[in-house]
Amino acid sequence: MIKTHQEELEKIINNALKEDLGTCGDITTQAIFPTTKKIKGFVQSESSGILAGIEIAAKVFEMVDSSTVFKAEFKDGDKVKEGQLIAKLEGDVCGILSAERVALNFLQHLSGIATLTSKFVKKVKPYKVDIYDTRKTTPGLRLIEKYAVKVGGGCNHRMGLYDAILIKDNHIAGAGSVRRAIEFACKGCPDKKIEVETENLEQVKEALETGVDIIMLDNMDVKTIKKAVEIVDGRTILEASGGITLDNVEEVAKTGVDRISVGAITQASTPLNISIELK
Amino acid sequence: MIKTHQEELEKIINNALKEDLGTCGDITTQAIFPTTKKIKGFVQSESSGILAGIEIAAKVFEMVDSSTVFKAEFKDGDKVKEGQLIAKLEGDVCGILSAERVALNFLQHLSGIATLTSKFVKKVKPYKVDIYDTRKTTPGLRLIEKYAVKVGGGCNHRMGLYDAILIKDNHIAGAGSVRRAIEFACKGCPDKKIEVETENLEQVKEALETGVDIIMLDNMDVKTIKKAVEIVDGRTILEASGGITLDNVEEVAKTGVDRISVGAITQASTPLNISIELK
Amino acid sequence: MIKTHQEELEKIINNALKEDLGTCGDITTQAIFPTTKKIKGFVQSESSGILAGIEIAAKVFEMVDSSTVFKAEFKDGDKVKEGQLIAKLEGDVCGILSAERVALNFLQHLSGIATLTSKFVKKVKPYKVDIYDTRKTTPGLRLIEKYAVKVGGGCNHRMGLYDAILIKDNHIAGAGSVRRAIEFACKGCPDKKIEVETENLEQVKEALETGVDIIMLDNMDVKTIKKAVEIVDGRTILEASGGITLDNVEEVAKTGVDRISVGAITQASTPLNISIELK
Amino acid sequence: MIKTHQEELEKIINNALKEDLGTCGDITTQAIFPTTKKIKGFVQSESSGILAGIEIAAKVFEMVDSSTVFKAEFKDGDKVKEGQLIAKLEGDVCGILSAERVALNFLQHLSGIATLTSKFVKKVKPYKVDIYDTRKTTPGLRLIEKYAVKVGGGCNHRMGLYDAILIKDNHIAGAGSVRRAIEFACKGCPDKKIEVETENLEQVKEALETGVDIIMLDNMDVKTIKKAVEIVDGRTILEASGGITLDNVEEVAKTGVDRISVGAITQASTPLNISIELK
Amino acid sequence: MIKTHQEELEKIINNALKEDLGTCGDITTQAIFPTTKKIKGFVQSESSGILAGIEIAAKVFEMVDSSTVFKAEFKDGDKVKEGQLIAKLEGDVCGILSAERVALNFLQHLSGIATLTSKFVKKVKPYKVDIYDTRKTTPGLRLIEKYAVKVGGGCNHRMGLYDAILIKDNHIAGAGSVRRAIEFACKGCPDKKIEVETENLEQVKEALETGVDIIMLDNMDVKTIKKAVEIVDGRTILEASGGITLDNVEEVAKTGVDRISVGAITQASTPLNISIELK
Amino acid sequence: MIKTHQEELEKIINNALKEDLGTCGDITTQAIFPTTKKIKGFVQSESSGILAGIEIAAKVFEMVDSSTVFKAEFKDGDKVKEGQLIAKLEGDVCGILSAERVALNFLQHLSGIATLTSKFVKKVKPYKVDIYDTRKTTPGLRLIEKYAVKVGGGCNHRMGLYDAILIKDNHIAGAGSVRRAIEFACKGCPDKKIEVETENLEQVKEALETGVDIIMLDNMDVKTIKKAVEIVDGRTILEASGGITLDNVEEVAKTGVDRISVGAITQASTPLNISIELK
Repeated sequence: MIKTHQEELEKIINNALKEDLGTCGDITTQAIFPTTKKIKGFVQSESSGILAGIEIAAKVFEMVDSSTVFKAEFKDGDKVKEGQLIAKLEGDVCGILSAERVALNFLQHLSGIATLTSKFVKKVKPYKVDIYDTRKTTPGLRLIEKYAVKVGGGCNHRMGLYDAILIKDNHIAGAGSVRRAIEFACKGCPDKKIEVETENLEQVKEALETGVDIIMLDNMDVKTIKKAVEIVDGRTILEASGGITLDNVEEVAKTGVDRISVGAITQASTPLNISIELK
Repeated sequence: MIKTHQEELEKIINNALKEDLGTCGDITTQAIFPTTKKIKGFVQSESSGILAGIEIAAKVFEMVDSSTVFKAEFKDGDKVKEGQLIAKLEGDVCGILSAERVALNFLQHLSGIATLTSKFVKKVKPYKVDIYDTRKTTPGLRLIEKYAVKVGGGCNHRMGLYDAILIKDNHIAGAGSVRRAIEFACKGCPDKKIEVETENLEQVKEALETGVDIIMLDNMDVKTIKKAVEIVDGRTILEASGGITLDNVEEVAKTGVDRISVGAITQASTPLNISIELK
Repeated sequence: MIKTHQEELEKIINNALKEDLGTCGDITTQAIFPTTKKIKGFVQSESSGILAGIEIAAKVFEMVDSSTVFKAEFKDGDKVKEGQLIAKLEGDVCGILSAERVALNFLQHLSGIATLTSKFVKKVKPYKVDIYDTRKTTPGLRLIEKYAVKVGGGCNHRMGLYDAILIKDNHIAGAGSVRRAIEFACKGCPDKKIEVETENLEQVKEALETGVDIIMLDNMDVKTIKKAVEIVDGRTILEASGGITLDNVEEVAKTGVDRISVGAITQASTPLNISIELK
Repeated sequence: MIKTHQEELEKIINNALKEDLGTCGDITTQAIFPTTKKIKGFVQSESSGILAGIEIAAKVFEMVDSSTVFKAEFKDGDKVKEGQLIAKLEGDVCGILSAERVALNFLQHLSGIATLTSKFVKKVKPYKVDIYDTRKTTPGLRLIEKYAVKVGGGCNHRMGLYDAILIKDNHIAGAGSVRRAIEFACKGCPDKKIEVETENLEQVKEALETGVDIIMLDNMDVKTIKKAVEIVDGRTILEASGGITLDNVEEVAKTGVDRISVGAITQASTPLNISIELK
Repeated sequence: MIKTHQEELEKIINNALKEDLGTCGDITTQAIFPTTKKIKGFVQSESSGILAGIEIAAKVFEMVDSSTVFKAEFKDGDKVKEGQLIAKLEGDVCGILSAERVALNFLQHLSGIATLTSKFVKKVKPYKVDIYDTRKTTPGLRLIEKYAVKVGGGCNHRMGLYDAILIKDNHIAGAGSVRRAIEFACKGCPDKKIEVETENLEQVKEALETGVDIIMLDNMDVKTIKKAVEIVDGRTILEASGGITLDNVEEVAKTGVDRISVGAITQASTPLNISIELK
Repeated sequence: MIKTHQEELEKIINNALKEDLGTCGDITTQAIFPTTKKIKGFVQSESSGILAGIEIAAKVFEMVDSSTVFKAEFKDGDKVKEGQLIAKLEGDVCGILSAERVALNFLQHLSGIATLTSKFVKKVKPYKVDIYDTRKTTPGLRLIEKYAVKVGGGCNHRMGLYDAILIKDNHIAGAGSVRRAIEFACKGCPDKKIEVETENLEQVKEALETGVDIIMLDNMDVKTIKKAVEIVDGRTILEASGGITLDNVEEVAKTGVDRISVGAITQASTPLNISIELK
């Protein structure tokens, strides 16, 4: 509903459509279906996963041909199983064939991210910890990839460099110490919460004394993370980060950290297998 | 050099930078490094693979801060090993930190595609067959993903619906028969080569009689593909497609088809592990 | 109705909305009102003045959320008094809160200009003289500021450097004399009326002899202006300019000049006090 | 240096230039100076104030004619007095005359804001309090108006609705209570500091108990503000807002609040009187 | 219907409207018809020809004022005679007068091209040959000029340098020989049909041996063309090009070539005389 | 030099380049010249005429490949003869071949207009009359077509509906009479010169009495024009318009009108024959 968000999304879809349609559109379909012909389509899941991007897929069909009717049977966040009907389509063959691949490219990619995220989330369910994404996203798709993370049950870390403070090793080196880096950040951005990346327990202690809002434990082993949790003892938020996989995430969750951030959910997902059958 | 290509690429990079920098840029770095400070950076490979996107990464740094100096030690298509220095950077800390993540997101993603492509290419090396990509690309990145496929030794199928004829099942159904679909396409686009997707050997034979330029064998098993090769006997180009993996690609190659198209190379690659060390 | 004008206006509003909403929109309202909720709003004047920009304010609400209903009780040019209801709003809380400040920023700014203009116009009402604006406008808002001047009863001088000839001191110096400057302008732009800026009575006489269309009397005192009026004696249009305030404008009007141009009406207005009450 | 910021600024300048130059440019100057002619310009202050926007003015001249040389004698934040030379210009007459008014419109407007801000800052100098701006800015110019506030010694409140949480009366009403509104905001945006607007001491107490980061005292009289300061006693940040003028700002500062936000600094400044003399 | 095509067209129309309307629109009509007034219009042919662009003309009126009703009596490709009513208009006087000239400029230009094309087509009707256009089009209008060629019964050669292979003299010189140029092209673009430009019969023979798809006979006299036809004897497509006029096109057609490409149909047409009568 | 003009021109060239190069550029040249190769080019006139657009052609080459060197031997307005060398080119083969056709399309089209204009101008040389263009221009190219008219010795009528008053028959009908139409226009646009279109001598007389600036004699025969000249007797400017050809323009000029406007110079010119030889 809010215009700016909608505009951003339409720009992303438009870029994708231009890649596929160029100026001339679907020349095969134009040659074979010179006149208008109605067709029906059935969007089907070929495997199990969490659906994400169904409204974006609908928007793709609408942007190509506003007369296409798209009726979703599931909504984002729903679990779909192999063989299930996700949505029905009806409209002119040319509009549907011209939009089909782009719609699937969005739907499969985003559902892939939501599905992988939900696997991480499920693994840590017994523990009081949230799964966060990172800035390791596909260039141009961060907005919708972060949306898919939320659909999969994850939480969003900062959108970009512009909307939150995250002090990293180079900042600490530049400032001279963890403490001084945090002081600079507090002064420069008094209205932002501050997160600092630490590499060892000394830095954790130093950061804790400054009253920083969030401490990231970067690439620490489980044993060290456990010690950090003991040291901090609930006085600030702790985020584990680096090298987290489906295999080790539960072990990390057990340490008692508040957040686990996982680059893989946006970097290493595979597309959910979804197809469109036309009749 | 050619302006339109360059423009397209700059638009893609610009979109990615806007996502990460917003209007305010890297607020952490601005708060901590209020004045100019020189820094050096070392782009390093953390695993083995084929490099793709090194000039795009350089362009990202340049677009953020034109005074940053980027010196590549490898070029696209080169094989890099774990621990190798890929490029050196020198410039103002603010410019480098603001560009770092976006540059890596491009470089890792494209190198991941080139690396996976090269694995397919290697598997089929003994056979006279080319590996082709598909339109199953990440929305907004098709131009550079197809470039990465070429870097990895693959070939590019059509860019989109607009630049080549590919007659699929729905077109055949709409036209009434393989033959009629091909006739329509010939008449509508007399200057384009024509490819037709077939689902069984009957369709292969029908297509062959029309003198079509390329016949795609869609989702056929190896045995059927082999028969198709015998039937066609070099009279037209044959492309195997559907369900090709690293495990079965060699078997398909052995059948004697001319081309194998693989959706996975753009859909299921994982980013090559590359990092930037700053000092 | 005419598209190009409308487009220009929408671009101005869009720029203002982007400043306030960024990509993420009103995060406070989104966090507190997760679901749709209807709300009513009452746009009220907190002081007396001339209303300008009511349709622009309506457009702001519409562009943010097209389902918001905006019902104006007054129209541009109407006099509003303290406490009067200017417009009623009804719609979803998120759309209304997201548009509120931007709509007010336009409405208050333009009404401020119309109000100040109307004060100048009122002061000179007994005399046959028009109040004109200048190019001293806020960057990016000239189109709508000049509109507000007209709403306040003023007249518009040229839109910019591109649509009318105004020969200034540097042009005269460059051409060698008032006469030669006018000759150059006549030759270069035979279809434009020509106005020349003069600094003393000698220049007024020289300009008069060339048959120029309008003579601007720049920064002259009232006594000199009066003499210029006598010299010209109705043979051309006279415009007084420079240092005109609400205190001295009537005295200048009394001299008999045809036009008085006042930079202050777009440069030194203060926003009309208008608020929106939500329930 | 950072590209996105620079781009934003160039877009603002470009919009302003298009208003003044249209497609045809400065037709008067083109008619009178058909050939190239060198000219010098002297940017002079006609009154005392704080300079802001000198680099923007330089950029305007550069964007119109890149061969114009602009040499600033002062920098943003410097105090300038009546009659002082601010900058020297040299270049082709057509480029300089075409850019002159737009450059001055920016420079005068921003210096006006910086000057007014500095007056507020000076009044409260003896007290430990900062002057903040608001979202009451000129549509399209927020980025540079907020910059001018900083140049004048003020601090910036949030850039827009998108980058910080500010809970207002309608949010409180919607949520049911101050406490619930803050809880919703905490949950929706766990990484943002939260500010809440209060209208009476009851709300101040309720907000204080939630541990909110900043409490705004909206339109309270000095006596009430003083009581709020006593109640809060340093446990959170207090911001006074509403109806603050140069006359009452010191009295408000004396109460011991941490911040005073003033809409007037961007809404009610008058342009600093600056001129360009050409020779 | 397909979005990208539609967008391209709207951009072309928008550019044309901006030229004519600027920011201020039709100032004459605005001054004389301050209020809404209904008017009717009659689009009439003043000479005989083939209509092209009637939907574009309708779109122009719609884009200027969406309330204007445009009712076409003929469709593109129809033959119109002097004095015939092409379309009826009804709407507000301001919208119609603002769009009139731009609509006619499109309609006359495109109908001029369709009319001239149809004259060439008619001349060669007895022979089995198609008339093709070239890339000698008006900058910015290629898309719609090529459309007009089709409306007039002609065929479209490649849209631009990007969508088909045409090997010219410089390519041959660069590659070393006709054969090598064709080999390079085959290898670089295995999926494109290849056309080669030849200047003499030796080159025709050399090209024929390579199995090239189309051979262009560039600027050859009728006698040589005839020999080329004999040599090729149906084994590939032959296209005559260069210096073709209405006077000599039939003679060229008689030689038995498959295609004749004519720069004149887009370069040397004159607008069809069409007017709009308003009442 | 002036940015806005330059920008407009670059947009026109960019549109033309995009048509020809698409996203992929010149695929033939890329396939045949995989590596850099230097080439020289010679722009030559194949017939006699007036050159227009030589700097635009240079800009096209520069925009495609900034390393191409373009050295003009003639400048706009110069007379060129068959076989003369207009410009020399040197640069990489790919850049030159990619820009060649677009550069020629501009240069031939504009030189065609300049050449035709100069023929009209030459015919009326003995008489004190100027040749004017109209708004009958090619959509999207008005700016540069009007420039070509000036290069050919003609004068420019208004740029569009937005920058001058021209009262036509529908305006007169709407206002009720010539006199009232002129009065409305004077009041609405006091700073514009006013031109009125008349259809008979009664209207000429009526217009003359109002003191209108220019009277257009629309589609009158030579005899009537002569009478109009006698009636007006130098008291206002007279413009003959409608049905003017190279055959009748001198006769019209002899009547003593001040201006003759000719739609044909932008509507019915043919491109000047210019070629580029590459070596």
